[in-house]
Amino acid sequence: MKQAYFYPRVLFSCSIFLWSTSNNAQEKTKFLDAEQSDPVKMGWMIGSPPPTDRILRFDDGSFFQFPALRWSVAHMRQFMPTINVSNGLKTPTPLATNSKEDIDKIKFTPLGEKKSITWEESLQKVYADGVVIMHHGKIVYEKYFGALTPEGQHAAMSVTKSFTGTLGIMLVEEGLIDPTKLVSEYIPELQNSAFGDATVRQVMDMTTALQFSEDYANPNAEIWKFSAAGNPLPKPKDYDGPKTYYEYLPTVKKKGVHGEAFGYKTVNSDVLGWIIARVTGKTIAEVLSEKIWKKLGTEQDGYYSVDAIGTPFAGGGYNLGLRDMARFGQLILDNGKANGEQIIPKSAIDDIKKGGNKKAFAKANYSLLKGWSYRDMWWITNNDNGAFCARGVHGQLIYIDPKADMVIVRFASNPVAANSANDPYSLPAYEAVAKFLIKAK
Amino acid sequence: MKQAYFYPRVLFSCSIFLWSTSNNAQEKTKFLDAEQSDPVKMGWMIGSPPPTDRILRFDDGSFFQFPALRWSVAHMRQFMPTINVSNGLKTPTPLATNSKEDIDKIKFTPLGEKKSITWEESLQKVYADGVVIMHHGKIVYEKYFGALTPEGQHAAMSVTKSFTGTLGIMLVEEGLIDPTKLVSEYIPELQNSAFGDATVRQVMDMTTALQFSEDYANPNAEIWKFSAAGNPLPKPKDYDGPKTYYEYLPTVKKKGVHGEAFGYKTVNSDVLGWIIARVTGKTIAEVLSEKIWKKLGTEQDGYYSVDAIGTPFAGGGYNLGLRDMARFGQLILDNGKANGEQIIPKSAIDDIKKGGNKKAFAKANYSLLKGWSYRDMWWITNNDNGAFCARGVHGQLIYIDPKADMVIVRFASNPVAANSANDPYSLPAYEAVAKFLIKAK
Repeated sequence: MKQAYFYPRVLFSCSIFLWSTSNNAQEKTKFLDAEQSDPVKMGWMIGSPPPTDRILRFDDGSFFQFPALRWSVAHMRQFMPTINVSNGLKTPTPLATNSKEDIDKIKFTPLGEKKSITWEESLQKVYADGVVIMHHGKIVYEKYFGALTPEGQHAAMSVTKSFTGTLGIMLVEEGLIDPTKLVSEYIPELQNSAFGDATVRQVMDMTTALQFSEDYANPNAEIWKFSAAGNPLPKPKDYDGPKTYYEYLPTVKKKGVHGEAFGYKTVNSDVLGWIIARVTGKTIAEVLSEKIWKKLGTEQDGYYSVDAIGTPFAGGGYNLGLRDMARFGQLILDNGKANGEQIIPKSAIDDIKKGGNKKAFAKANYSLLKGWSYRDMWWITNNDNGAFCARGVHGQLIYIDPKADMVIVRFASNPVAANSANDPYSLPAYEAVAKFLIKAK
Repeated sequence: MKQAYFYPRVLFSCSIFLWSTSNNAQEKTKFLDAEQSDPVKMGWMIGSPPPTDRILRFDDGSFFQFPALRWSVAHMRQFMPTINVSNGLKTPTPLATNSKEDIDKIKFTPLGEKKSITWEESLQKVYADGVVIMHHGKIVYEKYFGALTPEGQHAAMSVTKSFTGTLGIMLVEEGLIDPTKLVSEYIPELQNSAFGDATVRQVMDMTTALQFSEDYANPNAEIWKFSAAGNPLPKPKDYDGPKTYYEYLPTVKKKGVHGEAFGYKTVNSDVLGWIIARVTGKTIAEVLSEKIWKKLGTEQDGYYSVDAIGTPFAGGGYNLGLRDMARFGQLILDNGKANGEQIIPKSAIDDIKKGGNKKAFAKANYSLLKGWSYRDMWWITNNDNGAFCARGVHGQLIYIDPKADMVIVRFASNPVAANSANDPYSLPAYEAVAKFLIKAK
């Protein structure tokens, strides 16, 4: 393993809390490819003890440097404290299978390229750790790579936000949250922050106007202070900043006018998580367990990373099994119904599907996401099939295509965090698979 | 909550790694009783954020001070990194129920007392968090208290040792470990330690002669250094001791002659864990998953706490669901067979049951455990019913009574660590329940 191939930025121990989707251009650094960086072949954390250069740690950030991060995203619990999302003790609902091996041969042209590649080849490009495709409610494709197994769990990164948004809109539909109200009516502690005069709806759709940079390259970016606050490790003695998510959020300053432009800022999800916790009196881990996880027939518990006082990271801390993420995607596709039970009100799913403000979204200038919008912490493609998705850095995905009756879920460990690295090999690929399945019926 | 009722010793952050069974007399400190210290009523970690005096932390040791430890033992994962013991994705094997409510009324006389109490009353005395009793393979009694729920998980403390010992004797039966060999033949790193010239069998039965004190009251006791080594938090800058379990174990010095006396020292279990990891090439978490957890039809994954390099704590770090611990006890009672499969060789169970050297055990002077012995990291009562058990500090237990065809499993959070605090209300209680069940048929 050559140092030269390492992830070029020195990541702080808190780096793991930096998962965001930015629209920066893909970095041009040369990385080991998917096969060269295979975390199993690399032998991370194997041995008693493992060889010194194969030991990964949280506090020095080594666990999240590429290529080591390929192992760590499937073993987050070994590095940090976590809180369970119990599925109860019920028998999991089986997933029927109807394998379609031809999917591997589907061809498409990556965005910005001229030569087509196959679906199978695209999985290497995006450093996929696992992919499940559901069609008409059955698994038509299921593959695992690297350190992930069917019984393993993987970081969902910012896909977590869509879980938070779903819980949020469920509570809106239940009448516990009024999205037209100001955030400060629920969380008085946020009165003097940027969120004080924002509505809950603006938080849910990320149209708040915040002085909050998620630009990794800038050492003064607010994301670093947020990360330090959420880091569960004891703070250094000379540290005088906020020590938890709840201490950080009231420090966020306003910049601009709420409601005008989409601005993808992780802190919105943590504010929504706070509101959910406040109105229910429970952590979002408990709320997710009670409202969805125990009812969905999942095979495994999920888990969140937590800060120093046990607060789950609503903006990016969820980890779960790939097959369970497929179940969750199918639940959304099926308008909130699973196992004969209306788990999520159909009206909540309708609210997601109707999408957010396209003009506000366009102001964020995502060159690969023309015409999209953002609603309830879901990304709405507004394509012909009405597809919408949950997206997380390094390639995490739930893609729901109602017209094709298809769900694609993916865990990945792309060395580049930004989705713009994966999108050229992903967005046209999803559409090609949808087309194939519509034809195949 | 009055400070005066707090656990009187200031526990270091590493205190959690101190679970051992000592034969010290019960401390005479006055504690809140089970009802007064109910962790749910106390409201630990509830709120967004919780009130300052209800926040528990790992690094300052507050999480493990009584009465807070009553909450923490059921939420260990929220405080530290852990490694999963997967049960696979299979459907759990149901546990049949044949409730016998009269068990609550069974009377017995606690050791050293004159007045009899009921089984139900005894549960308060031992600060039980949950109890399951199996008879003829069915649940006849199941109760939860405090912070534990059927779908929750609880620290097994030194019951972990019996899991390690069971895996050890399984590997002996499989021919991967020769118990007559010296430890140093498997782990050359231990050549110059006390374990260098000890046999594996002496380690498995804890008849090694070690300079290793587990006396909490002595700040120079070796257990503190062991705890510091195993603590997963970053070490202080001026710390120059061993930084992992594997770095600590080679430093253990010999004191006396191996094989002569039973000496209950946690490090033996970690040496056995090391041997298991070395001969299998896997962590004990993986070995337990593959050999037992995936085959047993458990309802939940279990998990181990880990040190800074991901080594599971073989001497005390396992956490699991109570019903799954009942399944494990039943597996041992049923000579290693469950769901029609011989999961553990019968010869391994026979080896446990035949017990260890009684004379060696007697030298340890356990006033409440006359005539007992220790084998394969299980405690053998040598009573008329051939009962044997796994025991952990603060009241954790698996009690197997072959004659009564009974298994009792218990999680608890007694403010006093030593089993000698629980034994007067437990040992005669188990025998009384066995007697009742034999009569009840």
